[in-house]
Amino acid sequence: MAAKRALIIMAPKGAEEMEVIITGDVLERGGIHVDYAGLAGAEPVECARKARIVPSIAFDEAKNKEYDIVILPGGQPGSTALAETPKVGDLLKKQAAAGKLIGAICAAPIALLSHGIKAEVLTSHPCVKDQLVEGGYTYSEDRVVVSGKVVTSRGPGTAFEFALKIVELLEGAEKADSLIGPMLLKI
Amino acid sequence: MAAKRALIIMAPKGAEEMEVIITGDVLERGGIHVDYAGLAGAEPVECARKARIVPSIAFDEAKNKEYDIVILPGGQPGSTALAETPKVGDLLKKQAAAGKLIGAICAAPIALLSHGIKAEVLTSHPCVKDQLVEGGYTYSEDRVVVSGKVVTSRGPGTAFEFALKIVELLEGAEKADSLIGPMLLKI
Repeated sequence: MAAKRALIIMAPKGAEEMEVIITGDVLERGGIHVDYAGLAGAEPVECARKARIVPSIAFDEAKNKEYDIVILPGGQPGSTALAETPKVGDLLKKQAAAGKLIGAICAAPIALLSHGIKAEVLTSHPCVKDQLVEGGYTYSEDRVVVSGKVVTSRGPGTAFEFALKIVELLEGAEKADSLIGPMLLKI
Repeated sequence: MAAKRALIIMAPKGAEEMEVIITGDVLERGGIHVDYAGLAGAEPVECARKARIVPSIAFDEAKNKEYDIVILPGGQPGSTALAETPKVGDLLKKQAAAGKLIGAICAAPIALLSHGIKAEVLTSHPCVKDQLVEGGYTYSEDRVVVSGKVVTSRGPGTAFEFALKIVELLEGAEKADSLIGPMLLKI
């Protein structure tokens, strides 16, 4: 069976590098192939705290591929760019219509709101809570929330739990649990 | 007062990207300027789980600058490269002779051993424990160990604690504590 595939979309500037890298690394440890997409192309992305990450694929190429999950990292102004870019919305709607997973962490759930992605309940970084509640979502303060095919989480400090939940959804709880010890992670 | 400065050295291949990025990002949040050095130059580094990070500085330029802490991330074959590269040893010895901080996480403490950096007690990823004990170090299984000017830690899952300890040593406990809430970190 071919490895499952995940797409992490990095806005041209201000993706939260911990959320990009913790999520991608843990998924790779779980045997899931990760593409790091550059929304503006394949040039290095300057992240929220100045680290520069090279995309493995340009968004315009990635949007024509199939992914088992599409993931939106937080950080600013990255989250706002994801929320305001129509082609991100097109991809999320395609993903939702296909009954496939969508993940968003930190401030990135504002992109679910702006692009009309439904979820019965979600969470986010507290800084965008009001926006999401006003947008009509039922809000939870759990560290990771799974609602239908939408997985949300709260910030860099919840990124390991977010990533492990995604591994669990795609590869099972046993695989996810097997990653905790070697990383010396305390959950 | 000028911002304190940290140097994170990335081997040409196989630095553990979570340890690079969590450490660098948390230090930046703590007001510490971080340089990501490329041991082989300024070209992007392919990390242990395939993410590619662009150095902010080539090692050969960084080695002539002053840093308040020099940090070795783990990952393989990155840690072995750090352990086997004489110019990394030269920099660590210069840092130790100046009474300045050195940090190493995961498998990277093997570079402290190979370059003769003294510490009364240290920790590491369990996979290199035997090597360090045979090398004469007193070994601790604490998640972060500070011994004189040497700070060590155990793996990706302890990287937040490692980074927060470094912020505490350079900027004080109040600054370190102030970072925990906004990251939604559970310590």
